[in-house]
Amino acid sequence: MPIDPARVILRTSRRVEFVDTDMAGIVHFSNFFRWMESAEVEFLRSLDLSVAFQDDGDKLGMPRVSASCDYLKPVRFQDLVEIAVTLRRLGTKSVTYGFDFHKDGALIARGQVSSVCCRVRPGQGLEAVAIPPAVRTRLEQAACPP
Amino acid sequence: MPIDPARVILRTSRRVEFVDTDMAGIVHFSNFFRWMESAEVEFLRSLDLSVAFQDDGDKLGMPRVSASCDYLKPVRFQDLVEIAVTLRRLGTKSVTYGFDFHKDGALIARGQVSSVCCRVRPGQGLEAVAIPPAVRTRLEQAACPP
Amino acid sequence: MPIDPARVILRTSRRVEFVDTDMAGIVHFSNFFRWMESAEVEFLRSLDLSVAFQDDGDKLGMPRVSASCDYLKPVRFQDLVEIAVTLRRLGTKSVTYGFDFHKDGALIARGQVSSVCCRVRPGQGLEAVAIPPAVRTRLEQAACPP
Amino acid sequence: MPIDPARVILRTSRRVEFVDTDMAGIVHFSNFFRWMESAEVEFLRSLDLSVAFQDDGDKLGMPRVSASCDYLKPVRFQDLVEIAVTLRRLGTKSVTYGFDFHKDGALIARGQVSSVCCRVRPGQGLEAVAIPPAVRTRLEQAACPP
Repeated sequence: MPIDPARVILRTSRRVEFVDTDMAGIVHFSNFFRWMESAEVEFLRSLDLSVAFQDDGDKLGMPRVSASCDYLKPVRFQDLVEIAVTLRRLGTKSVTYGFDFHKDGALIARGQVSSVCCRVRPGQGLEAVAIPPAVRTRLEQAACPP
Repeated sequence: MPIDPARVILRTSRRVEFVDTDMAGIVHFSNFFRWMESAEVEFLRSLDLSVAFQDDGDKLGMPRVSASCDYLKPVRFQDLVEIAVTLRRLGTKSVTYGFDFHKDGALIARGQVSSVCCRVRPGQGLEAVAIPPAVRTRLEQAACPP
Repeated sequence: MPIDPARVILRTSRRVEFVDTDMAGIVHFSNFFRWMESAEVEFLRSLDLSVAFQDDGDKLGMPRVSASCDYLKPVRFQDLVEIAVTLRRLGTKSVTYGFDFHKDGALIARGQVSSVCCRVRPGQGLEAVAIPPAVRTRLEQAACPP
Repeated sequence: MPIDPARVILRTSRRVEFVDTDMAGIVHFSNFFRWMESAEVEFLRSLDLSVAFQDDGDKLGMPRVSASCDYLKPVRFQDLVEIAVTLRRLGTKSVTYGFDFHKDGALIARGQVSSVCCRVRPGQGLEAVAIPPAVRTRLEQAACPP
């Protein structure tokens, strides 16, 4: 079942907090990456999934392999930032989300984050594994409803 | 004077702090963006420059227009992360830095940040302006020594 | 009009984000201070006030003079944290808020933050000033309704 | 062996980063708690200890039970903050550190953090345990040299 990379799978919003600002009076650029993750988590929650989960007794996580963001307009304290999430790509072991950030109808930033499904074993590092079928199915259905 | 995008203009390092970690036991991916900025600031300091400065009475800043990072290996609490900074591109109003992160000799992440020189006027937003000549000259000399 | 330091002036909640956790698997203690500020801002917003405002052309802010938190139980990723805000003290220039954090009905942390009203002049530092009467009146009414 | 709560057990310093600032142009108050932890970790490192360690196969950690800070003067981007750490109290299961922050010789903030030694069992929560003798001895020697 092919996913539709343009379909918005979650819309959410955040009000800019004081701690998010820097001395230039605008949101520090690093916060957009926190917001992307937070929107991803909210999307997964909506499917009863998480970025950290168990599968057959294994502890799985989704560490990031790449992240990027383009900043078009500054955002300020108390601004309401609207976030639209898309599922750009769903690989065997990896997933890529896109994020469009709007304020008052204007696009202010556009980001992307790719993660790889990994088995997390304390003291032994991370090993990439296939996304469990139950997780995959729910992601596909969200990005390509019947 | 053409700059050399491969020339390392600063080498610095950071020890991973406890607060940088997340429940997966590794450094949260957003911290690499903080580290990139911190390395950029340290580079600018070495030239007696800053990311926030005055020019002819104007308050100038360097807000980011894009940032990206690829993550190759996880990094953990107390790891010593070595950062090599390059000046990839120096435009009229913009500058792009590259960052290679190593741990124990292995490349663990690779990032890039582009900023645009802007006049910061309280209550009036940001206006892109040419990088002041005095700043430009020092950046060029660092990236392309005689 | 005396304020009632036990009266809850705002109830809000936050879901713990992944970035809030550390390698011990629990929320990093520093985040409670961010949450306190965020709840304070939300309270001020409910009164159409802010932590950064203008008064007679002056730019005023509320920098913190003290902050503390006692931690009773750990909080984890995705937990829903409920925050109750009280106004403990309203001085001429200062204000002290109390914060009770609950999860599933159990008290998990208790914090307090005191701020002083200051005139913020670029390049000249901070000068403590009396809380403007219009601000004071709204705070008093919130903490001691008729 | 009684400890001396006035004895400075570590002196370190930090240069204020851009991300540490907020729109008021000063360091956000929450960062002092990150700095306290970081100084504590550096102290423990100097003793070949850590805030997360193994003892007899158990995974131990030192979650915070209380933290506080008084702020006397604002600190700004690029300021060099000097931190002096003291060991205020060493209990059976708990430890309390004090932190004095100076800039240019002036006291700018004063903080305190108390932690309790806990056994960390995945999925089972935290259980307070006695600080292992080997750890205790090194802490005592640092705070009360012969």
